Amino acid sequence: MNDKPARESETGAPQRGRGGIDYGMLTELVGYHLRRAQATVFDDFMRTMARDGVTPGQFGVLVLIQGNPGSTQSAIAKALGVERSTMVAVIDRLQEQGLVSREVAERDRRSYALRLTDAGAALTTRLRKRVRTHERRIAAALSEDEKRTLIGLLRRIGKS
Amino acid sequence: MNDKPARESETGAPQRGRGGIDYGMLTELVGYHLRRAQATVFDDFMRTMARDGVTPGQFGVLVLIQGNPGSTQSAIAKALGVERSTMVAVIDRLQEQGLVSREVAERDRRSYALRLTDAGAALTTRLRKRVRTHERRIAAALSEDEKRTLIGLLRRIGKS
Repeated sequence: MNDKPARESETGAPQRGRGGIDYGMLTELVGYHLRRAQATVFDDFMRTMARDGVTPGQFGVLVLIQGNPGSTQSAIAKALGVERSTMVAVIDRLQEQGLVSREVAERDRRSYALRLTDAGAALTTRLRKRVRTHERRIAAALSEDEKRTLIGLLRRIGKS
Repeated sequence: MNDKPARESETGAPQRGRGGIDYGMLTELVGYHLRRAQATVFDDFMRTMARDGVTPGQFGVLVLIQGNPGSTQSAIAKALGVERSTMVAVIDRLQEQGLVSREVAERDRRSYALRLTDAGAALTTRLRKRVRTHERRIAAALSEDEKRTLIGLLRRIGKS
């Protein structure tokens, strides 16, 4: 039996892909193609970042804290569309790794202001370069116009 | 490379979103928008299927087995682009739930031929209807043409 994952398997369109498999309704589902594309991108991201062990979610948090020093956990969670409890766990981990510092916020003493540590800033700057390489690789088959179109369409998913 | 995007990116994504947060390079990343769209779709799918507790991955497997009765685990894994070991775990679960049956394959006695049980077929038929509703909801802001464009672009992610 062949244990190799189907790296190149066709994500749909011809209804019968390799191995004569009938994809049925999956072919027409935005949700199915989105999930396949996301899995491909996630795998590439994790391979690219293997040395640093940073996930796409953690990377987004680091970039937002770098660009918005002093923001609260709630503001970052809201901006990234994740539950506050999830964000607290992500920040806990980044703080343990010495990448992020929490200080009691001046304006609201019940919340924490987030900042990157020097190590966090150095890592984030390094990761940004690597993410650019990853991004070029996953979008290699798309022109700049197509990338913009894709982003524009993705931003309308789930909107009414 | 200049990592600072313009105030208003070319994708029309405002660089400062709610709460005055600066999204920086995230605005231009296909990977970031893909992950956000996927999270939205996943949440909607899980809410839609709450009663049956079926994940998007399990749904894909059920649809492929229904459309390709007698296929092997390896063929289904390859078609969906997942590791064989992951697929075995998914099938184990579906078999425990009485939705899928495994028989020793006639052509290759080392592998299993998969079929939906009557309960599995009834559930899959019911789920297909619910997935159509979910799909209409997540893609409500897109025309049929835009949906086709989006699927076409998603299929080229990770290709060279």
